[in-house]
Amino acid sequence: MAAPTIDHRGPTFQTLTFDVLRGLASVLRTSHPVVIYPASGTGAWEAALANTLSPGDRVLMYETGHFSTLWKKIADSLGLKPQFLQGDWRHGVNAAQMEAELAADTQHAIKAVCVVHNETSTGVTSNIAAVRLAIDAANHPALLLVDTISSLGSMEYRHDEWGVDVTVGASQKGLMLPPGLSFNAVSDKALAARRSATLPVSYWDWEPILAANEKGFFPYTPATNLMFGLREALVMLEAEGLENVFSRHARHAEATRRAVRAWQFEVLCANPAEYSSALTAVMMPEGHDGSKVLETALRSFDMSLGVGLGRLMGKVFRIGHLGDFNDLTLIGTLGGVEMGLAVAGIPHQGGGVDAAMAYLVECARSDG
Amino acid sequence: MAAPTIDHRGPTFQTLTFDVLRGLASVLRTSHPVVIYPASGTGAWEAALANTLSPGDRVLMYETGHFSTLWKKIADSLGLKPQFLQGDWRHGVNAAQMEAELAADTQHAIKAVCVVHNETSTGVTSNIAAVRLAIDAANHPALLLVDTISSLGSMEYRHDEWGVDVTVGASQKGLMLPPGLSFNAVSDKALAARRSATLPVSYWDWEPILAANEKGFFPYTPATNLMFGLREALVMLEAEGLENVFSRHARHAEATRRAVRAWQFEVLCANPAEYSSALTAVMMPEGHDGSKVLETALRSFDMSLGVGLGRLMGKVFRIGHLGDFNDLTLIGTLGGVEMGLAVAGIPHQGGGVDAAMAYLVECARSDG
Amino acid sequence: MAAPTIDHRGPTFQTLTFDVLRGLASVLRTSHPVVIYPASGTGAWEAALANTLSPGDRVLMYETGHFSTLWKKIADSLGLKPQFLQGDWRHGVNAAQMEAELAADTQHAIKAVCVVHNETSTGVTSNIAAVRLAIDAANHPALLLVDTISSLGSMEYRHDEWGVDVTVGASQKGLMLPPGLSFNAVSDKALAARRSATLPVSYWDWEPILAANEKGFFPYTPATNLMFGLREALVMLEAEGLENVFSRHARHAEATRRAVRAWQFEVLCANPAEYSSALTAVMMPEGHDGSKVLETALRSFDMSLGVGLGRLMGKVFRIGHLGDFNDLTLIGTLGGVEMGLAVAGIPHQGGGVDAAMAYLVECARSDG
Amino acid sequence: MAAPTIDHRGPTFQTLTFDVLRGLASVLRTSHPVVIYPASGTGAWEAALANTLSPGDRVLMYETGHFSTLWKKIADSLGLKPQFLQGDWRHGVNAAQMEAELAADTQHAIKAVCVVHNETSTGVTSNIAAVRLAIDAANHPALLLVDTISSLGSMEYRHDEWGVDVTVGASQKGLMLPPGLSFNAVSDKALAARRSATLPVSYWDWEPILAANEKGFFPYTPATNLMFGLREALVMLEAEGLENVFSRHARHAEATRRAVRAWQFEVLCANPAEYSSALTAVMMPEGHDGSKVLETALRSFDMSLGVGLGRLMGKVFRIGHLGDFNDLTLIGTLGGVEMGLAVAGIPHQGGGVDAAMAYLVECARSDG
Repeated sequence: MAAPTIDHRGPTFQTLTFDVLRGLASVLRTSHPVVIYPASGTGAWEAALANTLSPGDRVLMYETGHFSTLWKKIADSLGLKPQFLQGDWRHGVNAAQMEAELAADTQHAIKAVCVVHNETSTGVTSNIAAVRLAIDAANHPALLLVDTISSLGSMEYRHDEWGVDVTVGASQKGLMLPPGLSFNAVSDKALAARRSATLPVSYWDWEPILAANEKGFFPYTPATNLMFGLREALVMLEAEGLENVFSRHARHAEATRRAVRAWQFEVLCANPAEYSSALTAVMMPEGHDGSKVLETALRSFDMSLGVGLGRLMGKVFRIGHLGDFNDLTLIGTLGGVEMGLAVAGIPHQGGGVDAAMAYLVECARSDG
Repeated sequence: MAAPTIDHRGPTFQTLTFDVLRGLASVLRTSHPVVIYPASGTGAWEAALANTLSPGDRVLMYETGHFSTLWKKIADSLGLKPQFLQGDWRHGVNAAQMEAELAADTQHAIKAVCVVHNETSTGVTSNIAAVRLAIDAANHPALLLVDTISSLGSMEYRHDEWGVDVTVGASQKGLMLPPGLSFNAVSDKALAARRSATLPVSYWDWEPILAANEKGFFPYTPATNLMFGLREALVMLEAEGLENVFSRHARHAEATRRAVRAWQFEVLCANPAEYSSALTAVMMPEGHDGSKVLETALRSFDMSLGVGLGRLMGKVFRIGHLGDFNDLTLIGTLGGVEMGLAVAGIPHQGGGVDAAMAYLVECARSDG
Repeated sequence: MAAPTIDHRGPTFQTLTFDVLRGLASVLRTSHPVVIYPASGTGAWEAALANTLSPGDRVLMYETGHFSTLWKKIADSLGLKPQFLQGDWRHGVNAAQMEAELAADTQHAIKAVCVVHNETSTGVTSNIAAVRLAIDAANHPALLLVDTISSLGSMEYRHDEWGVDVTVGASQKGLMLPPGLSFNAVSDKALAARRSATLPVSYWDWEPILAANEKGFFPYTPATNLMFGLREALVMLEAEGLENVFSRHARHAEATRRAVRAWQFEVLCANPAEYSSALTAVMMPEGHDGSKVLETALRSFDMSLGVGLGRLMGKVFRIGHLGDFNDLTLIGTLGGVEMGLAVAGIPHQGGGVDAAMAYLVECARSDG
Repeated sequence: MAAPTIDHRGPTFQTLTFDVLRGLASVLRTSHPVVIYPASGTGAWEAALANTLSPGDRVLMYETGHFSTLWKKIADSLGLKPQFLQGDWRHGVNAAQMEAELAADTQHAIKAVCVVHNETSTGVTSNIAAVRLAIDAANHPALLLVDTISSLGSMEYRHDEWGVDVTVGASQKGLMLPPGLSFNAVSDKALAARRSATLPVSYWDWEPILAANEKGFFPYTPATNLMFGLREALVMLEAEGLENVFSRHARHAEATRRAVRAWQFEVLCANPAEYSSALTAVMMPEGHDGSKVLETALRSFDMSLGVGLGRLMGKVFRIGHLGDFNDLTLIGTLGGVEMGLAVAGIPHQGGGVDAAMAYLVECARSDG
């Protein structure tokens, strides 16, 4: 990241572009093009909609939590007509319900289905393959747009195999970079939709970017230093092996849940098949405010936990366990939570760290 | 820049936000709000238009070179109706012509006037104060939008005093950072226009950003590490003193022009009052291609010169002299050009570096 | 540390020298000069002897562990005659025994007393003030030389108040720098001894260094980049406050010992008054080899513990808790040990991390 | 350099040690062992003497300039008897004179011959192969000790082929690192001398270092971060190719001398066969003080030139052109000198930079 800013019109940058595009495609499991934006993930959300849709288009979205709600608001801002299926913030998308909605849309007014793969506000994942099957079962031509911002590089994700049309990703979670880069992986069908879409696009326009990318360049100034960092991050992921990275995250998530249960707290995610490997949201006991845990953890142990977002404000706190994280960082983190609960005077059982350690020991032994 | 990514919802980040907003306002000479985007300058161009205008709005733009042409294309993409006054790429805006156009627009169909302060493709500046006077003289209510991407922090710029409504800036030139941050400074009139504008905006929307900024936060993930770097850069500029920074750039620009004339080449900028302090575009002698100079400089001396952009392709090469640049870096750069001309076999006189040195010696003496 | 190497004969370096010398004196609690060597701590050990002694001089040393034994070997190599009082590696120096030896030396053949303040091999400290009293009680003129390599910046140390003649320090422990710098703080009496000492000295010679330091320079090339890092480290220590730094280390040491006892292991240090705040050596149960714990911790949890050194090989492992360490790093570290014991199949009780957390919670509560 | 400090007893460090030792041997053109000290070059000078000699031993040294004089003082400090052949500081060693001295020493009282390969105070090199021939011609068993501190990695050096017994090197010149590491390359004959030498050695003692190095470790704490940097630097030198590195330095030295002559100044080095590729000392015209040039260059152009050292104080200034230096850095540097002369009012001809550029153009053409 500290490499001097280089000329983004020279051959060194060209090589960087090709390396990064190849690496991203590999992490996204796609043979289709990936577009890189010098922007936060929010920009890539907007890009996915603006490139493929026209004013007034209906989009089917599912309320999995705070971030799906934000994506829905972007659709509103752009003049789309989101149909927002209500959820309880404890489950992923209900694919059967989606299928019913799509089947009912015999006029094919719905132009796109938008799903968040890993809800950062809840620690609940959605089954993307099941959504694909639902669309196909309804024989519906809608595009499938998926947000993988907080799962990319931490959990399995398969753009091509799952039939996703636009995948939205970003740099600052599983790719372990600072924020400032985001991505769209784009299917042939999405590229075709681009050509007929009439929402105004300029910065987010895929076409000039894909054209310039063919020569290793960008139509406007790319975030060069973040691109260097991204190449490093992709090399590190490849060196560890994606499967190993995913199983490391799964191990830490399971250890975290065992700690949560030992504390006699409840994991927000209600369906074990939908547990997130990237973070765990923990429900506060009735009458206790999660923000007190956060304040105590920050003040006493200089540890940042995730606040409850949107309607979960005060009701949960979130433990992140993604990116450059090892067993001992996890134990330190869980220790910080357990001590924070004690200092804050939140009623709980001890033994959470012990439970997590017991699980990690078991894993280490079977590795052995 | 290499500081670990920090939590953008905590108090440390809050302090950073306030520091950076204060410093940017000071460099932009404004007491009005500044909006920071995790995006390239191209994004901030789009933001200036999208926040203030409605589909079909007329905007008056002036063709000062390649970058004003790109901005015009963005206006097209967004569904605006740019009226693009033709220029010769060797002069800044013709304020009198602008005044005439505005005076003729008795219906006030023109909603905004867009000007590039420092044309990076030509090394020609435009007199922003004169444009303001022209608008006022025509008694026209159009907004004044100004691009200062390649002048901010290198040349004098006065958002408030010059009556600019939206200033567009970026991180990667005079602020000496990697690309990835861009800015809009916003007048009261622009904020009012925001409220009636109907172009769809989401990522670029000033309002949620300004609201969150009041508490030191952002509505979506900011480019945290670039923000840290920006704080450093602003502190460095303040330590050197903006006036000193500007006179250093002016000195290097004059030394460069003296070298160009000694080589018996022509500076592209035809009007001395419009010389850029940030870069100098040099016209190639008839029958010789500027790209040959660039290739030779890169191959023989590992030096990147600026290529001729758009209609100047092959006809000029550009020498940058902005950012973290001192007298010796300049001499090395001019030496590279002079040697590159010789190695490439481009007919020219020697003595360019000598002429530049003579001027720098003169300056050093009078400093002394 | 990554600042470009600067000219060590210019004014910028001069300021650096003065800043660093002032900061070191403050950490060492001395108003006397401090000599900085571009060398490991081993060099500063040699310097303390070579500047003050003559071939064949007797020095009284105390075997507190592996590092005091190494210092004794250096004395041998230099042609001194060390009298090495035998210790059990579980206690600090026996000041009474030292006093007896000194009192018996009526001819004052003993020229110096050498003591290690914090034995890195055992986690046992020695009472330097008591040694000073012993020398005074014996009315003996011997110099007092003290090694504070692994305690400086982590535990209280008072060069002037404790009447130390030469203090030996280094960069890589409590000062949180890479290795490569070491120090001698020097009393007036030591400076006087320098003038009559006849061991050959050149690189280690205090006199030309002190002379050059007065002007902010060094007689030979200093390790410039480490000096920059040292200034940063001294500023960080001052910002936290030395007393706070010491109590943080003391808290971590106590939490560690509580974990050790919960595991039903024994802390090597037999005397609570001599516990080290910087590290804790843990005795292995009979029949179990400490190196197995180390190998397991490294292989399964990528954690480096300290090996048993010298006669403690296999009999102990060492847990470091110094430098840039917070409560959660400690919990992660102790978790790694507890899990390492389990994976390695070393018989132990659980609950070590729990015991440490209980103590840290208690501290946080009384802070709050 | 900014890598976190790693455990110097683990396998990662082991690999580093082997890589670095292999790389250094390659740059030194030796198949014999190289000893690395966490110390400045001054320490490696002392080490070369202290490992091989005994108190009162005679050493034959040659006064090539300030640094050979400093080495001689170290020999004095260690209790050796240097025989210091007087030189004029404008020539390298007189091998014939050395041969005569050695031939006259029929008792072989002289135990070592000490020569500086590249005198940093004068920019004069000495012919090491010729010194070897002189020793052989005199049939004398003296060891040959050579200082290559400021030539290693910038100019050709051949430890084995030239029959050197101890080569003294350091990190901060041609290896482009911060200061803090120095080296001894050691012949079999030198190792044998080590066994009979009686000067006290401890820190500098080759034997424990060589023994520990066999396993990839060090007997005392190495300067770990500088070792990482050294590996990088060795990789960079190898990537460019040593022959290319040497010819780059030779090109810059010749360009510098052409500038000096154009200014109508004299190069201090009187014998073209002995020109240094690493730096050029420039003689001031009678009645003008070189320090004025330095002060002006620093004040007006923020450029550090080398001061005249020892008896050359005020009589010369020195231009360094070694390490990470390209053609444009050189032109910037020579421009700074030429402008500094003008600002300081030192009588000189212009055209120095022009002359240097003409030569670099010629080289680039013949490359191209």
